[in-house]
Amino acid sequence: MSDVEFTVKFRHRLRFTHNCFDPANGALLELLEPSQENTPASVQVFLDENLARCHPNLQSNIERFADIHAGRMKLAGQVICIKGGEELKSGWSQLEPILKLLDRARLCRHSYAIAIGGGAVLDTVGLAASLFHRGVRLIRIASTTLSQADSGVGVKNGINAFGKKNALGIFTCPWAVINDEGLLSTLSEEDWRSGFAEVVKIALLKDAGLFAEIESRADQIAQRNIEDAIPFIRQSAQMHFDHIVHGEDPFELRHSRPLDFGHWAAHKLEKMSDFKLRHGEAVALGIALDVTYAKRMALLQEEACQRVVGCLNALGFTLNHPLLRESDELLSGLEEFREHLGGPLTVPMVRDIGAMTEIHDIDTSMMREVIEQFFFDRGVMNKPVSAGQLS
Amino acid sequence: MSDVEFTVKFRHRLRFTHNCFDPANGALLELLEPSQENTPASVQVFLDENLARCHPNLQSNIERFADIHAGRMKLAGQVICIKGGEELKSGWSQLEPILKLLDRARLCRHSYAIAIGGGAVLDTVGLAASLFHRGVRLIRIASTTLSQADSGVGVKNGINAFGKKNALGIFTCPWAVINDEGLLSTLSEEDWRSGFAEVVKIALLKDAGLFAEIESRADQIAQRNIEDAIPFIRQSAQMHFDHIVHGEDPFELRHSRPLDFGHWAAHKLEKMSDFKLRHGEAVALGIALDVTYAKRMALLQEEACQRVVGCLNALGFTLNHPLLRESDELLSGLEEFREHLGGPLTVPMVRDIGAMTEIHDIDTSMMREVIEQFFFDRGVMNKPVSAGQLS
Repeated sequence: MSDVEFTVKFRHRLRFTHNCFDPANGALLELLEPSQENTPASVQVFLDENLARCHPNLQSNIERFADIHAGRMKLAGQVICIKGGEELKSGWSQLEPILKLLDRARLCRHSYAIAIGGGAVLDTVGLAASLFHRGVRLIRIASTTLSQADSGVGVKNGINAFGKKNALGIFTCPWAVINDEGLLSTLSEEDWRSGFAEVVKIALLKDAGLFAEIESRADQIAQRNIEDAIPFIRQSAQMHFDHIVHGEDPFELRHSRPLDFGHWAAHKLEKMSDFKLRHGEAVALGIALDVTYAKRMALLQEEACQRVVGCLNALGFTLNHPLLRESDELLSGLEEFREHLGGPLTVPMVRDIGAMTEIHDIDTSMMREVIEQFFFDRGVMNKPVSAGQLS
Repeated sequence: MSDVEFTVKFRHRLRFTHNCFDPANGALLELLEPSQENTPASVQVFLDENLARCHPNLQSNIERFADIHAGRMKLAGQVICIKGGEELKSGWSQLEPILKLLDRARLCRHSYAIAIGGGAVLDTVGLAASLFHRGVRLIRIASTTLSQADSGVGVKNGINAFGKKNALGIFTCPWAVINDEGLLSTLSEEDWRSGFAEVVKIALLKDAGLFAEIESRADQIAQRNIEDAIPFIRQSAQMHFDHIVHGEDPFELRHSRPLDFGHWAAHKLEKMSDFKLRHGEAVALGIALDVTYAKRMALLQEEACQRVVGCLNALGFTLNHPLLRESDELLSGLEEFREHLGGPLTVPMVRDIGAMTEIHDIDTSMMREVIEQFFFDRGVMNKPVSAGQLS
């Protein structure tokens, strides 16, 4: 009989840059180690179709970048445009063509798959890259506020299955993450806003000062003042990064999912909306619900609750979505959340702004009241919601 | 910019036992931690169909075991019989039903998938269990000499794709591995023999004394003297286990695959034979080729080479398989071996019995000569091969 603990070493790398395919930009090159001496690194690029449309020169810039730096990198196959959005995460039929392209490009474990885009592209290409040869090197170039502030920095990938968000995936560390801030300019208003829900989340869990700053800049962020906004995205990315490399359980082998505050409801609402609700929009709703529940249970003071809801409102999030009417279905998300992590139910909560805690029991009748009140009683929100937001 | 190394802790567990579903046998129970306090551990069992046929009481014994120990474990779904063999590893169409069963059983990350069988069942159920919820706990109950001596103990799973063995898979640590020696009695002669190729392999790489012992007991092993044979399987399992927990690179992130001696040819030959050749039979061939090449390159003394080939012969392995005629195709396995690991070609070799080394270049014209000589010149073998072995 043998029972031995062992450790596996990973290296996580995060870069902030602007226009990483500018020939003079060294951020990407510096990450590429050749797989064999004196040969350029072999690279297969996958590009979010929508991003390519918004940045019409991006694809040719990538090709030009590779040409100019031919001694350092080589495109193993043509740049592949790939339709992003949640549909990409819907199953094997979407994953298999990516795997085939990795095989056609003859990537080896020391070659690179580069995924450029939002969360769905990063998640799906990431899963394919992690499965092929049991893992080729993945470089994520995150192009949305959400992926830059949160998911792109993490050690997860995944696709949806059996009606459950991210039911299939792998914990593994990407080779590197590049947050290319030059790509944020063309985001839709909803996509722009979405990432800030995750900034609010991490501030609520870990940093009251950061929350106060977001609160004071919420209007500028909502107005897309990029110079006001970028530092928040960077700080959120850095906090997620630090949580992974310095936290105790990056692969979530224990009971706790501290970064998933507001996420039990968020994952369920996304699914209930057939993914019309963006992840960040759903997270904003989930946070609002959970702080209101915490207030109701006397875990959180009323003023703190109001500040959170007010900040989400000021960022432009819609907090009384019609799906909240379906409270039975929504509440089934609690058990799905438990199952996905396993073990006893463990829901991250806040007992003050910047102070996280965990609870192992949700009073569902109380939560139901909160949900219903939330939809019907405008009193929980700082400002009235216009009819236009109730689509 | 952040560049930080971090570690992830895993715990590896290995048990040797006899008849682990005997109600009095505590090996399995002791491994099951309840996912929630005061509730039995939730378990989904997958059973190799062929094994179930050879041990007709096994399925009912499992059910009875669960009944008797209902306070400790609960079958989350009925015991699923699953057809083993390489066909199971052929793709998504085989993997998806297993994933669906895990979902139907509502396993959470702290529940258990138990796979009982040979390598293909362990590999495929293992991949499914590692993908579902990004990993539920996997207990492998290895039922063949090969899986007990080698693959079952490892941190790999995988299926075949794009004409390549194990092209898709994950490195991850199973929750536990149980080598149930009561299951070995019904193996076919070929399956019995197969695992000893991996015992020879690890002895050649690491332990000259162990090799001398196998050599002296080869006839008894070939005659299935279980008391002579079992200690070799145990020692091989333990050496593989130690390599994982004490070696430096269990997830093969660097250039070296020290345990894959003889495997560049083995993986290719398996595929070329449409998997009619068992993995262990192919490994025996691969070892014989590589030691003969090593002798030819004056890396290994002739006497050592003859001892290895002699030992494999004495164990009953066929070493002049007709597939060796197709040396061009066989040699393409070298590049596939390189690609699967990545980086510069790194082939494990032996410079003496029990002394491994690595080489980064194979002289293919010399290897071709070795292959051809190997098939046509019986002189490389200690004893003549009967026509019956050339099927």
